[in-house]
Formats: sequence, C-alpha cells, structure tokens
Amino acid sequence: MLVVMERNATASEIRRVVAAIEEMGLEARLLPGKQRSAVGIVGNDGSVDASPLSGLPGVLEVIHVTQPYKQVSREWKPDGTVIRFPGGLAIGGDDVVVMAGPCAVESEAQILAAARAVRDAGAVFLRGGAFKPRTSPYSFQGLGKKGLELLAKAREETGLLVVTEALDPAGVDLIERYADVIQIGARSMQNYSLLKRAGQTRKPVLLKRGMAATVTELLLSAEYLLAEGNPDIILCERGVRGFDAGTRYLLDLTAIPLVHRLSHLPIIADPSHGTGHRDRVTPMARAAVAAGADGLMVEVHPTPERALSDGVQSLAPEQFAALMKECRMIAEAIGRRVAEPAEVP
Amino acid sequence: MLVVMERNATASEIRRVVAAIEEMGLEARLLPGKQRSAVGIVGNDGSVDASPLSGLPGVLEVIHVTQPYKQVSREWKPDGTVIRFPGGLAIGGDDVVVMAGPCAVESEAQILAAARAVRDAGAVFLRGGAFKPRTSPYSFQGLGKKGLELLAKAREETGLLVVTEALDPAGVDLIERYADVIQIGARSMQNYSLLKRAGQTRKPVLLKRGMAATVTELLLSAEYLLAEGNPDIILCERGVRGFDAGTRYLLDLTAIPLVHRLSHLPIIADPSHGTGHRDRVTPMARAAVAAGADGLMVEVHPTPERALSDGVQSLAPEQFAALMKECRMIAEAIGRRVAEPAEVP
Amino acid sequence: MLVVMERNATASEIRRVVAAIEEMGLEARLLPGKQRSAVGIVGNDGSVDASPLSGLPGVLEVIHVTQPYKQVSREWKPDGTVIRFPGGLAIGGDDVVVMAGPCAVESEAQILAAARAVRDAGAVFLRGGAFKPRTSPYSFQGLGKKGLELLAKAREETGLLVVTEALDPAGVDLIERYADVIQIGARSMQNYSLLKRAGQTRKPVLLKRGMAATVTELLLSAEYLLAEGNPDIILCERGVRGFDAGTRYLLDLTAIPLVHRLSHLPIIADPSHGTGHRDRVTPMARAAVAAGADGLMVEVHPTPERALSDGVQSLAPEQFAALMKECRMIAEAIGRRVAEPAEVP
Amino acid sequence: MLVVMERNATASEIRRVVAAIEEMGLEARLLPGKQRSAVGIVGNDGSVDASPLSGLPGVLEVIHVTQPYKQVSREWKPDGTVIRFPGGLAIGGDDVVVMAGPCAVESEAQILAAARAVRDAGAVFLRGGAFKPRTSPYSFQGLGKKGLELLAKAREETGLLVVTEALDPAGVDLIERYADVIQIGARSMQNYSLLKRAGQTRKPVLLKRGMAATVTELLLSAEYLLAEGNPDIILCERGVRGFDAGTRYLLDLTAIPLVHRLSHLPIIADPSHGTGHRDRVTPMARAAVAAGADGLMVEVHPTPERALSDGVQSLAPEQFAALMKECRMIAEAIGRRVAEPAEVP
Repeated sequence: MLVVMERNATASEIRRVVAAIEEMGLEARLLPGKQRSAVGIVGNDGSVDASPLSGLPGVLEVIHVTQPYKQVSREWKPDGTVIRFPGGLAIGGDDVVVMAGPCAVESEAQILAAARAVRDAGAVFLRGGAFKPRTSPYSFQGLGKKGLELLAKAREETGLLVVTEALDPAGVDLIERYADVIQIGARSMQNYSLLKRAGQTRKPVLLKRGMAATVTELLLSAEYLLAEGNPDIILCERGVRGFDAGTRYLLDLTAIPLVHRLSHLPIIADPSHGTGHRDRVTPMARAAVAAGADGLMVEVHPTPERALSDGVQSLAPEQFAALMKECRMIAEAIGRRVAEPAEVP
Repeated sequence: MLVVMERNATASEIRRVVAAIEEMGLEARLLPGKQRSAVGIVGNDGSVDASPLSGLPGVLEVIHVTQPYKQVSREWKPDGTVIRFPGGLAIGGDDVVVMAGPCAVESEAQILAAARAVRDAGAVFLRGGAFKPRTSPYSFQGLGKKGLELLAKAREETGLLVVTEALDPAGVDLIERYADVIQIGARSMQNYSLLKRAGQTRKPVLLKRGMAATVTELLLSAEYLLAEGNPDIILCERGVRGFDAGTRYLLDLTAIPLVHRLSHLPIIADPSHGTGHRDRVTPMARAAVAAGADGLMVEVHPTPERALSDGVQSLAPEQFAALMKECRMIAEAIGRRVAEPAEVP
Repeated sequence: MLVVMERNATASEIRRVVAAIEEMGLEARLLPGKQRSAVGIVGNDGSVDASPLSGLPGVLEVIHVTQPYKQVSREWKPDGTVIRFPGGLAIGGDDVVVMAGPCAVESEAQILAAARAVRDAGAVFLRGGAFKPRTSPYSFQGLGKKGLELLAKAREETGLLVVTEALDPAGVDLIERYADVIQIGARSMQNYSLLKRAGQTRKPVLLKRGMAATVTELLLSAEYLLAEGNPDIILCERGVRGFDAGTRYLLDLTAIPLVHRLSHLPIIADPSHGTGHRDRVTPMARAAVAAGADGLMVEVHPTPERALSDGVQSLAPEQFAALMKECRMIAEAIGRRVAEPAEVP
Repeated sequence: MLVVMERNATASEIRRVVAAIEEMGLEARLLPGKQRSAVGIVGNDGSVDASPLSGLPGVLEVIHVTQPYKQVSREWKPDGTVIRFPGGLAIGGDDVVVMAGPCAVESEAQILAAARAVRDAGAVFLRGGAFKPRTSPYSFQGLGKKGLELLAKAREETGLLVVTEALDPAGVDLIERYADVIQIGARSMQNYSLLKRAGQTRKPVLLKRGMAATVTELLLSAEYLLAEGNPDIILCERGVRGFDAGTRYLLDLTAIPLVHRLSHLPIIADPSHGTGHRDRVTPMARAAVAAGADGLMVEVHPTPERALSDGVQSLAPEQFAALMKECRMIAEAIGRRVAEPAEVP
C-alpha cells in the first residue's frame, strides 16, 4: 500500500501518517519526491483495511498495491484449477466444455427435445433454469422443483451433466441434490448470503460476473466461495453494462485472458445473454473460444420462436450444430479441443 | 408495442407477424411506410410478453411502448405517495427528511455519540449498518443482532427513527422487529427472494438503486415490493458505475426528477456512497436537495479517522451541522423545508 | 511513479527495473514487501514517459503518482483563476455567471427575441451556435458567419456578452473577431489542432468535457491551452455517457467539487445538453449551483416547439425566469451571488 | 416515427400532434390503445427532423423507427463493399487483411526493421503514426512530414501498403500524397471538418470508432464520408470506455457482426489499443478474426521495450508471427483466408 501525500503536505502531516501506519502494526517507509512525498507500507498482508489513512490531513490518495483477494490468485496457486466430473470430463484443462440448453425448463417435452438436440451436436452439459430471476414480477418465474426433476430426467436419458441456477440459500439446499454444477447468476454475484451457502456445498459452482462488476470484484466474490471451503469454482463472463443499447450487454472477452493471468480458476463465456440476439451469438461464441475460454454456455431451444423467455437469443438446434463444428476447428487452431460427450451407459 | 419490419420484409412475413399477434389474443394494426412497414399492437395490457415476435423472419425490432411496470407508475396513481411515521414525520410530502449516522454500528459508545451528534444537527433518522455487505470476505461484516439492539437503544435515547439494512429474508424477520425502515442495499436491488419477503413486511422499505441499474429496473424492483402488498417504498439514488475512477460512483441526480415524473414514490439521495470522499459529500448533498430529493442519507461518524469502514466518506459532526444549515436554505429556495426532529418525550 | 513487481519476480528482474529507471536519469528506491516488492521512482518531474517499464519481465503494473498535468493544477497555482470581462463581470470569483440562449442562431428575429428574454431574466452571456457539430450530415449545420453577425448585433442591442462554438482552427480565426468567449465543444475536447489554435487566441475559451472524458483528460486538454499561452480557460461539465438511455447523458456534478480540488480553473455546468429534456433542466441547473458551479449554460428559446434543433431541451423564457429566481436564493445559501447584467449604455 | 402519447393525453393534444405532423408534409396515422394512444408517421423519408414533436403537450416520447443514416446501410446497398488495391489486395471480401507496425514512426532504422518483420510474418499493410494525437501536450507528437517520407520508403522497400493517421484537413492534403489508406482516429470520429475533407479524397479512409460512440454514431460519421462522395470506407473497432480500469478500453467485438448486419461497409479490429497490454493482444486478435472481422490492425515494434509510445501494447516480431499462424487457421475455420503479401517486383 502506498500513501501519496499532497504536494504541500507538512512534515507533521507526514509524521502523523507514519504514526498511524505503525499503530496498525505495520512498517512505514518514507519515499520523498521532488514534487510530493509518499509513504510506503511494508508488511501489509492484505487483510488489513488501511482505508482510514485516506482521511488524514495532507493525504492525496491511498493506492492499493497488493490485490485484495488471496486464494483465487494465481500467485497463491500457480497451476490452473481443473474440476473433474464423473465420466472423465474436466473443466479448466485443455478441453473446451460446451453447456447448452434452453433459458428456462418449460415442459418435459421441451427439455428432452432440447437435451437430445444439444447432445447430438456435441454439448456435454445441459443448462436450463428452474428458478428464474426476472426483472419484472409479472414475467414467467420458472417451474421450480418440478423443473429440477425434469432436468434430472433429461440427464438420465442423455448422459448430459446438468447446470442450473440457485437464487437463494434455500435454493442451494434443493439444487445440490439435482444438479452437477450450481449456477450463481449475474444479479446474485454480490449476494453474500448465497455465496456463503454455496461455499459450503460439495458441488462445483459456476459464478457469473455481475453486469457492472469489475474483474477484481468477480474474483472477490469467488474468494467468498473459496474462503468457505469450496475450491471448485468456474467463472463466467456474460456481458457488462455499456452505453450502446445496440449491442445490449457488452461481452467483455478481454476478461478471459485477464482472469487467466490473475487467477487459477477456469472461465467460460455466455454469448447468449452477452449479446441478446441470435445473429450475434454464433460469431461471439467462436470469438470466446479463440480468446481462450475454457467453455461456452449457449442457449438452444428446440423451437426458439415459441420460447417462454429469451427466445430471440436462443439458437435453433441446426444453428448450434453448425457452431459446434466451427468451434472444434478454432479450438484446434490454438492447441485445445472441444470436449466430446461421454457414451451413454 | 410496435413490431418494426425489415425494409425488404415480404407480405407473407408481415402476415405471419399479424397472425402471431392475434394468436396472443391481441389486435394488430398495420402501419405501412415508404421505407418499411410496422405492425402496431392494440390492447396489450403490459402483462403480455411479446418478445417472441422479435424472432420471427422479417422482423427488425420490437419496440415497447407501454412501460413494463404498473403500480409504481404515476399514471397508475397520480398523487405522490406520502409515508407517515409516529410523531408526525412524513416522507414524500413537502418535507426533506435527513437520515444520518455511521456506516456501521461499531460499539455502544460510537452509535450513541453519533446519534446525539446527528440529532443535535437536525437529522430525524439514524442510519447504521448491523449487517454489512462487503466486497471482500476479509472485511468487517457488522455486529449483527447486537448492532440492532444498539440502534434500538440509540432510538430510545434520542427519539430518532432507525433505518438499517437487511441482506436476506432472514434478516428482514429480525430487522422488522427493531427498525422503522428496512433498507435494501444497492447490491441487493435484484435479489428477488429478498424483495418478495420485504414486500410482506409492514415496515416501510428503502430501496437503493443498483450500481448498474437503469431507472426502469429500479422501478421494476419496487414493483416487486408493491406487488407483494407493501405500498410504503422509498427509493434512493446512490451512484452508478461510470468510467472515471476519479469520481468513483457517479451520483446520478437526474434520476430524481425522472423518478418524480415516472412514479409516485418518494426518492432520496445518498451522497456519501455516491461520491466516496467527504470533500464531495457536502456539495452533492446540497445539490440533491436542489434537484428535488425527498431526503438525504448521509454518513456521519463521531471520529471519522477511526471508523472501521468508509471513514473517508464520513462527515465529522461539525461538518454535518454546517451542511444542515445550507440544506435548510436550499429547501426554502424551492418551496420545501427540512424536517425537524420531534421533541423527545 | 511506482513499479509494482509480480510476487515471484526474481532479483535479476528487479535489478533490470532499477537499471532502466537509472538509464532514464531518475533515481530508484527499492520497497521490499512481504508479498511482493515495488520500486519507487524519485525525482520524476512528470514530463518523463515511464510507460516502457510496464513491459519489462516481472513487472505487474506501473502506478502513476504524480498527476500528468501541471499548469492547470491547484498545486501549481493555489489561487483560483478569475477571468475578468469589460463591464466588471468575472468568472471564477464569488459570482455565479449565467449564459443562456438558443441552441442555434436561426434568424435575426429569433436571436434578438432570445437575447432580450434571457437578459430580462438575468443572464449575462448570450449563447447560440453559428457553426453546429451535428451527428448526422443531414441535420441543420448552422448559419455560419451570418450567425456570428447576428450574435454581434444582439450584443450591441442588449449588452450581453457572447459565447459561441468554433469547430476548427479556421473557425477560431473568425470567431475571435465576434465573440467574447470561444467555446470548444464536447466532441472537440481532444481535437488537438483546434486546442493549439485556441491556445493562441487572446479571448477566453470555454472547454466542454467530452462525453467519455475523465476529469484527468479534461484537465490535460486544458493543459494544451495553457501550454500555448492562454490562461483564461473555463471548464464545463455537460454530461457523460452512461448506460441508461432514460437519463440520456449523465450530468456528472461531482466533477465540479473534484475540479475545484484539483485545479484553479473555474467550472460551469450545462444542464440542457446534460439532461436532454426541459423537465430535468431546471432541477439540475439548481443542483449545479448548489454543487458549487461557477456558472450555468442554459438553452432558452423564445418558442421552443419551433426550434430547428434541441427544442425539447430548451426552456421557454418564463421557465428560465423562474429558474433564475431559485438560483439566486441557492447561491446565497452557499455564500455566493448570481451575477447581474450590467446597465446598457 | 412513432409519437407515443401520455396515458392521460387529451383528444385535443392528440389532434395537435396530428396537425403538427401534417404541417411537416407527412401523413399521421392514429394508433389508439387501451393504456395510451400513439400516432404513427407514414412517409417520413429519414431526412425530416421530427424531434420538435417531443416538446408538444401530452407527448411522452418520440420513437425513431427509420435509422438516421442512409447510404451506409445494408438496406441501401445489400452487397458488401469491397475496396480494391493495386496488386490484387481487397478489403471487404473473403480475405482477412492484416495491418501491422509500430505505434509511431520513430526513425528510419526502426520503421524499416518493423516493416520487414511484419511483412515476413504475413502482414500486407504497414501502420505507423507520423502525426500522433496525444492526451498530454508533453508527450511525443510524431515526426510529421519526415515520418510520411519514411513510411513511403518502407513501402518501396517491402511492397507493403501504408496506412497512417490524419489529424486535421491540412493533414489529409499531405497524407493523401503518401499513404494508401488515410486513418481517422477514435478521438476524431466526430471531427466534422476532418470528415468532410476526408470525404473528398480519392484514397480509402479507415474510420475508427470513438471511445464513447455507439454503432449508430459510427455509421453516421461514415455517412459524412459517403455523403461527400468517398465510397471506400473501412470501419474499425478499437475499444470503448468501460467501468473497469482492469481491462482498459473494452474491445466491443459484438460491434463486428452488428455492423455487418446494419451496413455494407467492411470492419476491422484493433486489439492493441483495445486492450492496452500485449498479453491480451494475441487472444483478442484471434477473437476478432473468429467474430468475423475483415481485418486486423496490430501494433508491432522491433524492440517493444524501447518504443517511444505504447510499448506495453506492442507485440515483438516473433509474437506477431505466432499470432499470424493462429489467425490463418481460425480464418479457415470460418471459411475465409488471411491475405498474403504480394510479391515485391
């Protein structure tokens, strides 16, 4: 941490900063400059909150040098985290893992048709919401527990693993009994009660980036999960708020190489929510693989024009199959491969 | 709702749109144009989700004309909502109501000193967090129930009403027994489990705007509360994400007149979180009153440089007293008055 | 400047950073830490570009401690700049100076009617565009030189000073002969050819903040003007890009106290472009004065519904007169006063 | 265009809107609704500015249905624009065209070394700034005309075509004599004097998206160029302002498929300025090709750590060569190919 003084800070103001640092049990080191002085803090282990220093007289700003997170950082654990699933599937290694399915589980016929279609095209995870966070109280909110049962049925029939979203701690209690991966959605990224509960489950967690969250904040939310004891976290870029309604959310693919540099956790991309229109889903899904994503989450609906939610951003099965072919070639171009579905026993 | 067709849309594509609208039980009205055609929807009451139309061939875009919210709108209820409290205090009328206190309840001595100081300067509500949502798992998370008891004690001694934040449904169970207003923080604005529970309490709710929420989304979250039966909602602008780290959050005061136009609900401003630095709190608090805010929420700490959280944005008691004087004159300039503390019995 | 090393940086990587700093003629000071080391730079006078350091192996990031601007900073010149005009008017002192008039000069009748109306209500500057930067090539682009002549005529008749925009260096040549203040618009804030030419005029320059410019970038653009020798610069906040189309541009009033802290230059606010709708102009104009703005620039049109551009954000004369009354009271509440028009000789 | 009325708009207010539309020579069509009425405008050809309607009493909002641009739209010209260069090179067809070189021309040795390196790796255009727009007046501003001469020399020796930036109309006069493509930078995207001059040159123009420009605004700036008679326009995505300093500019690759849908003009991507750090340049360059970009502009410097500007975002020659190999495979995966350098005569 570095405390930058104002240009006209007095010697006594600087001494007061030094004293305040020492009161915190830290060591201060003076950095005099031609224009202004600064005081460096030696030995801060990252868990000390030194922000009160910024209120002292003569202080211009306090700059954090150490990142505020710990267990999620690549410096803490240099090797990438690999999350292994029954059947040999792994997220975080060389494979690019594709999760696909409808926005919401609507009926048995719909989810089974979707599951078969995405499996035939090469997906290895089935996605589908049973509990839907909706901006309006008057929108379809999901089938609830019935939806979870239908997802389990689809898994049984197709061999696909299942990922679905929990909205609150009670939802985790329920979903950990049905799903293979528990999703925490973008709106819940800073729902700390939910994060703490999800940190205690034994199932891997897919944590989506909030639509106004910095990469640092995403990593800090993941830190909540690791701090509670769950090491199996998959991050997901799904678009952030931008100023141009024309591109809806702004899919921030640069976050992928940035997360890979800062953290050992795998990161996938969701080009469906991130673009909001099927014309842009295919190019951006390809781009995510090219940028180094460890996986994709794509909305596919057997009959998109009849979907109860998000129909306009869902691919039809044949569009998804064409996308998978391109992704396989792009993965190879960068030395990876798209994970293949296991054989159904 | 208006379905805009592509320039080269065929007659059969237009007929398909018309048919789809009629299948939904709505009436379609053709709008031919020189450049392109559009199809208007007559009789949509706002609860129909017509987004599937945007996926039909030949459709360029679907424009929503009716706002997606209902009970929060000023068209639904032309007169402004006034929330009345014991002792004659009201939020939403002519009075400008000031809530002040520390970021977090830290100790009995601290909260009592803060309560006396803000009451003496003219605040009518005491704020203070017992449960703190913190970006990092390693930051101080609040005193919990003990903090609520201390707030109740401060109310008893000073006559101030109490506002404090609930992080989850269980928190509402607890806080509705202690506080006069239950706060839902910016990070929880789209926590729908929490909104549904808070919609069932009999206590008024202060709903803060999420840091990347549009005004429409803020109103839709308030709609959740009204839809559950709680009419006593106070909105709060507290700054949104911008691109300039220099001004931290961007306090969007334009939201105040905009909310007043679109909704009957009162709206206050929080210049402390909205600016992040005490140098900017006073000017922006004044600006909020001048923009027509129905109240202010201001962080005041008896000894800001010793605060456990957010010290740098807290005013000292004498700075807060000076601010109150200016706010009284500004309120008068626009035909309002700052609410005065009731007599302590 | 501070060079932060990666956690696992080797001693030889640190030595290479130290050597690179010394090659630049600067002094390096080592800051060892428990988690990572950093290297401070002593004696950098702000004009050295040390960014190449961030490319060296083992370097995590380079943090700039010294601000990149110089002559615009309050540290360089602690007393606020006051710009004096004939007739005793001054911008940057205790007075709040109001500039008003139509978006564009449209005709002699229109500009004279506007000038009389704003003068009667208490404005001291007449604004009006003769050269208009328009997003579309098919929009009205202004009357050009004829517009300047009409502005001069309005000044002669009303005693108002004139401010109008230059779009390019040739425009400055022309406008410095007609106007009292030359405006550089938001879209031109980083048009360096224009800034260099405007730095050479003897007329004061009103520099608007670009719609995606940080406060630091605004100050750096002002630095171009000062570096060319023009000390009479007025900054202007006019709204920045945000994510909510509902509030159009986001009027960032926090920039006002921030600029006052960082710089000695005066800053005014333009709530008309900053909000885009007359319902929001009045509250936000009041808010700007309460936040400490040194002036306002407000669009007023004699008949807003007939304006050739920006009609929806223009106030009618009676609305402007009501606003002026409120602003006078708000200015008094914070110890300032609204400047009064001089007597017409 | 659609004029949406307030819910309580009176019949006379609606009649006034109808009358105003007819005064403009357009046809009004009434759209009564259960909640509110709207008035559609039939026969507006896009060049009429109907914004004054939004100021009429009872009007809630005016929605533009027709896009504000014309000649740049794909509806105007369904086939994609292909820009052909001597030697058979074309931008906008199946080929992906790579432009590479240093940020600024610094010396003859530097630009020749860079040109040879990028040509050997497969680039077909040499980029390099002779006139540099710099945020600070104290930064290196480029070699000017001398830089243009060095670029021409490098072309002669390597056969590479040359693209370089013009800052003002006088710059276009000069650069059109030296360069094969004239670049208009992000900061100049709405410099209309420059756009008008560049619309009159016979050389193709590369127009970069402004850092806060919507895609619609980018297309409107291109419309300025087409309206002046220059049909050979290449658009360029180079990152927009976001809220996360960690990813610097946010490279908005979704703009690529969106532009391809809305316009016939080719669009390339600049991952160097768009990410600001060489670690992210390679993944995002690959992602741009996968997203469908018609080309890349990449900063390559023979010795990045010695660059006078932007060293940290420049690739070293061997990094660029590795990138080119990956891009060739990705282009093939989506049915395109990377353009190969012509034989030097």
